[in-house]
Amino acid sequence: MKPNLKVSLVRFAAFALGFVVTGVRGQDPLPSWNDGTTKQSIVDFVKATTETGGAKFVAPEERIATFDQDGTLWVEHPMYTQVMYCLERVPALVKEKPELARVAPYSTVLELLKGDRAAMEKLTMDDLMKLLAATSTGMSVETFSAEAKKWIAEAKHPRWKKPYTELTYQPMQEVLTYLRANGFKTYIVTGGGQDFVRQYAEKTYGIPPEQIVGTMGGTTYGYDKDGKPFLTKEPKLLLNDNNAGKPEGIHLMIGRRPFAAFGNSTGDKQMLEYTKAGSGTRLCMLVLHDDAKREYAYGPATGLPNTKVGTFTQALYDEAKKQGWTVISMKNDWKRVFAFEN
Amino acid sequence: MKPNLKVSLVRFAAFALGFVVTGVRGQDPLPSWNDGTTKQSIVDFVKATTETGGAKFVAPEERIATFDQDGTLWVEHPMYTQVMYCLERVPALVKEKPELARVAPYSTVLELLKGDRAAMEKLTMDDLMKLLAATSTGMSVETFSAEAKKWIAEAKHPRWKKPYTELTYQPMQEVLTYLRANGFKTYIVTGGGQDFVRQYAEKTYGIPPEQIVGTMGGTTYGYDKDGKPFLTKEPKLLLNDNNAGKPEGIHLMIGRRPFAAFGNSTGDKQMLEYTKAGSGTRLCMLVLHDDAKREYAYGPATGLPNTKVGTFTQALYDEAKKQGWTVISMKNDWKRVFAFEN
Repeated sequence: MKPNLKVSLVRFAAFALGFVVTGVRGQDPLPSWNDGTTKQSIVDFVKATTETGGAKFVAPEERIATFDQDGTLWVEHPMYTQVMYCLERVPALVKEKPELARVAPYSTVLELLKGDRAAMEKLTMDDLMKLLAATSTGMSVETFSAEAKKWIAEAKHPRWKKPYTELTYQPMQEVLTYLRANGFKTYIVTGGGQDFVRQYAEKTYGIPPEQIVGTMGGTTYGYDKDGKPFLTKEPKLLLNDNNAGKPEGIHLMIGRRPFAAFGNSTGDKQMLEYTKAGSGTRLCMLVLHDDAKREYAYGPATGLPNTKVGTFTQALYDEAKKQGWTVISMKNDWKRVFAFEN
Repeated sequence: MKPNLKVSLVRFAAFALGFVVTGVRGQDPLPSWNDGTTKQSIVDFVKATTETGGAKFVAPEERIATFDQDGTLWVEHPMYTQVMYCLERVPALVKEKPELARVAPYSTVLELLKGDRAAMEKLTMDDLMKLLAATSTGMSVETFSAEAKKWIAEAKHPRWKKPYTELTYQPMQEVLTYLRANGFKTYIVTGGGQDFVRQYAEKTYGIPPEQIVGTMGGTTYGYDKDGKPFLTKEPKLLLNDNNAGKPEGIHLMIGRRPFAAFGNSTGDKQMLEYTKAGSGTRLCMLVLHDDAKREYAYGPATGLPNTKVGTFTQALYDEAKKQGWTVISMKNDWKRVFAFEN
């Protein structure tokens, strides 16, 4: 091909694509959001950071956006999905080792799964850590992956009777898509297990395994009897990706400060502080669950009912107002919550 | 715009771009490689894994390629660049705390920097770890970044009197570019410090901070006197990214098994084993430094001189042959070593 023809074709292709992209851009990128200052703050941020030559322009490689998962991207009540996984794996463990049926916390979990909801109250954080280790370590990476994938495909949320992966918030899915369409790399930064979330995040959110920052456990490299190498998941905590662990995990896994961060609870406070402390314009948002009808209502911020799962304290709410973070009211800012709503 | 017109434009744009890409593809993507089976194995791998509908096709999101750095992407002799950084930072440390000048290992390093090459032999691994901690921890992430960036911009290699970042291997730069042009995500997986390599890798190799897997240290989140949050680098080892630590680090940071892996020493053995153990076609390559004239000659594989820096043992060479890994002869396979050669 003659160089001139090549240049002409590239120019025409760029023009044609630009034309199409502009056409798409004319549509509302956030149709599940009600118009208002909350929605506008997202649109303003994207416009400011992507406008070439603008004072707030952010180079494409610096466009990092981080999202908490539980309560920010999908439902976390009445209990975190991964805790449900640990609990619902217990019958399989007991089948392999029947003697566990008579030992706490396994016996407590069996009662709970039979419908004794009060048994949940008996489980301490130590019990949950024990269950996490028993269900998620001491096995190969591949075995864990297969078990977690199978569960996530079959398990149903007790209220909606739908797979957990259908209980993602449609407005937040639109934010993910909108940011990516504008050159942002989207990450999940979760207190949940990094390897657990990796099993479904690509299909559920379009976020690949390498963009999942979560609570991290060690692995050990070894060989099977045929000399084939494999990694074993160990009950060794490398980083608890909650609270201060979130900015620490972001530095470890990404090595850049985010320009946008989204959360919903006290566990996200430091991630938002760290994001906001960077230079230039930064977007920090917190989802407030104030919609008992379509989802759940909990805080205790703004007088909402208290909870141990995804606590949004009044202190966090006050810090948000002071720091210029935006609080998203699920009730007022979201036109619809789930994709399956009409 | 009418939908039909939009579709036509997208189709035309795709056609025009495809035409141009094909034109570019007609050029040799690896001009610094001599023709032969080594070069051909790279081209064959890329063709096989990217041919839509082919038996060995790899989905774009699965295209992960990992590269050791020292001795694989750039010169590691006579000493790893990061060790030179630690040594050359000592005068600044002594300036701040003059009493260090009389204490080993700082006193030994000062002798060494004055030209007493024998002093290098006195430094033990413990000394080096002490120097690493003194020069790379106990400071904010930003302070470390500024110091390392300044050094890498000014420091010169003792033989070529050029910045270390100009001593990358041009044939390997071409492999990085070639793989990326074919949809592969390129990662550095190095025994060097993750935060150190992140300071120059984007400019030097086109590899962003989030695609650097290295030896990882912990950080601690805190606040300065004005309440501004920052991360402090701690002398706490999270993962030693050498030997078995390489596949462990790959799982931690990427969460996928590479389809291609490149190394040059016994520290890369497990990464190549892990890569090769995956299904489908995998490319594993080791650079053999057999070119005393243009670079260095060391092994001790194939009777080359022995070394403590980037050891390539005969056992590794034998495993390469047994496992079907390709050994790259720097002398025979590379038309030129550095970009600055004529």
